[in-house]
Amino acid sequence: MHQAAPHITADAFNRQINSYPWLGSWMGAKATEITARGATVQLDVRPEFLRHGGTVSGPIVMAIADIAMYAAIMGAVPHGERAVTSDMTMHFMRRPQGAKLTGEARILRKGKRSIVCAVDVFLEGQAESVCHVVGTYALPSA
Amino acid sequence: MHQAAPHITADAFNRQINSYPWLGSWMGAKATEITARGATVQLDVRPEFLRHGGTVSGPIVMAIADIAMYAAIMGAVPHGERAVTSDMTMHFMRRPQGAKLTGEARILRKGKRSIVCAVDVFLEGQAESVCHVVGTYALPSA
Amino acid sequence: MHQAAPHITADAFNRQINSYPWLGSWMGAKATEITARGATVQLDVRPEFLRHGGTVSGPIVMAIADIAMYAAIMGAVPHGERAVTSDMTMHFMRRPQGAKLTGEARILRKGKRSIVCAVDVFLEGQAESVCHVVGTYALPSA
Amino acid sequence: MHQAAPHITADAFNRQINSYPWLGSWMGAKATEITARGATVQLDVRPEFLRHGGTVSGPIVMAIADIAMYAAIMGAVPHGERAVTSDMTMHFMRRPQGAKLTGEARILRKGKRSIVCAVDVFLEGQAESVCHVVGTYALPSA
Repeated sequence: MHQAAPHITADAFNRQINSYPWLGSWMGAKATEITARGATVQLDVRPEFLRHGGTVSGPIVMAIADIAMYAAIMGAVPHGERAVTSDMTMHFMRRPQGAKLTGEARILRKGKRSIVCAVDVFLEGQAESVCHVVGTYALPSA
Repeated sequence: MHQAAPHITADAFNRQINSYPWLGSWMGAKATEITARGATVQLDVRPEFLRHGGTVSGPIVMAIADIAMYAAIMGAVPHGERAVTSDMTMHFMRRPQGAKLTGEARILRKGKRSIVCAVDVFLEGQAESVCHVVGTYALPSA
Repeated sequence: MHQAAPHITADAFNRQINSYPWLGSWMGAKATEITARGATVQLDVRPEFLRHGGTVSGPIVMAIADIAMYAAIMGAVPHGERAVTSDMTMHFMRRPQGAKLTGEARILRKGKRSIVCAVDVFLEGQAESVCHVVGTYALPSA
Repeated sequence: MHQAAPHITADAFNRQINSYPWLGSWMGAKATEITARGATVQLDVRPEFLRHGGTVSGPIVMAIADIAMYAAIMGAVPHGERAVTSDMTMHFMRRPQGAKLTGEARILRKGKRSIVCAVDVFLEGQAESVCHVVGTYALPSA
């Protein structure tokens, strides 16, 4: 089947989020792949992201899921940068302890007014998801 | 009815999270009240917490909900600092635009192995919740 | 403050859901109050709603939450009967064992395209919620 | 890799849930496959499961997800029949209109005290999920 081209490349996405103070330049997450159906994002874990005991803080895990969904939406629709989160559900399943996190987002439903995505967050080199996330984003009308 | 005393005061909680690099010293959230049934936490919004357009970034809203639940759990049980998030569901309902966010957490269920909390996040001076959050925390066995 | 009148009465709502085969006539749930901001629904528990051990089955608890939200939405907006569930999150907190369940729904956000509700489900005569539910309903455009 | 044998067969599971009044004999759902990592369940849609317009009622969709998770848990652990639902989040993505629903559950995390599952619900012959569900089940201690 013909695979539709994404509406943004990983490079263009990375330039854009770098202009966001928190999610972009401070966190330093980067998209490594964006297709019309999903996206992969990576984050180098820095000491300031950790709780005591070396576990990555929950909101940082959420942030990588949010960025991965945002990248997937910008790949899936034009003007995806205007999408806003309506709901997000996270199930934390394993301790996120490691040097690098990867978020893999896939579009579950692309509607005219909203998009539903699932994300799994992985530690480098591991096959089992540390956090499963489902979220809905509203797409503002033109 | 006799109201049980909380297991931690707001002051002691604030000293403790100030030693957490991200949630504490970087974000600067502070508990203003902790009881045996809930907690209130405040956050001064800084420019680096914003998305374009002046909306507080989703993971920052999650962070204040997480801190409010954490404060409530530390008030509700001994050794609450060892609680870890199992699941969290957020419904974002209004644009979080403003200078100060307040998270009000209340314990819905206190079990031996887990605690369920709800949080509403408010903008200063407004009566309607901008984000409704429900979460479960696992309590490690002694 | 002036309280807006609901768009439907409890009696009219009950007549309408009685024409729904499953949620209405089979289950026998009934709205006891509908305002412009929320609704209360009651269900007499029958033996066929139970799991072994006398606990009300999870999907029956969901059904009463769904009916309570539906009643609240029909009270809050015109043509609420066309609302469809987008997402629903349930936290089951206590064993639902008893003869009568009550679902109390309140509107958290009323938008043009969607409505967010919270419901608590109670056993008769008890003050603590057995199940906390949050859901979003899409409102089809005219 | 060696695939562990499930703790129950589909036939034994079907006999057992047939003794449950609501989820079993009334609904008529059946497991078609149970492994140590997941389960598939089918439901023939009857007229009494429908809302006006021919859409399967939300709680019926939840029920098939619940049965699929229950089958997966009984395949994954001994004494899985004692598992109770702690939380469940559903995202409804497409109208469930059709004659047969399939629920495909997979275990995301198998812990000593709880199990996290994801389910997708499909209409016969369609590749896209109509409902994505994530849930946690508590496992009572022996």
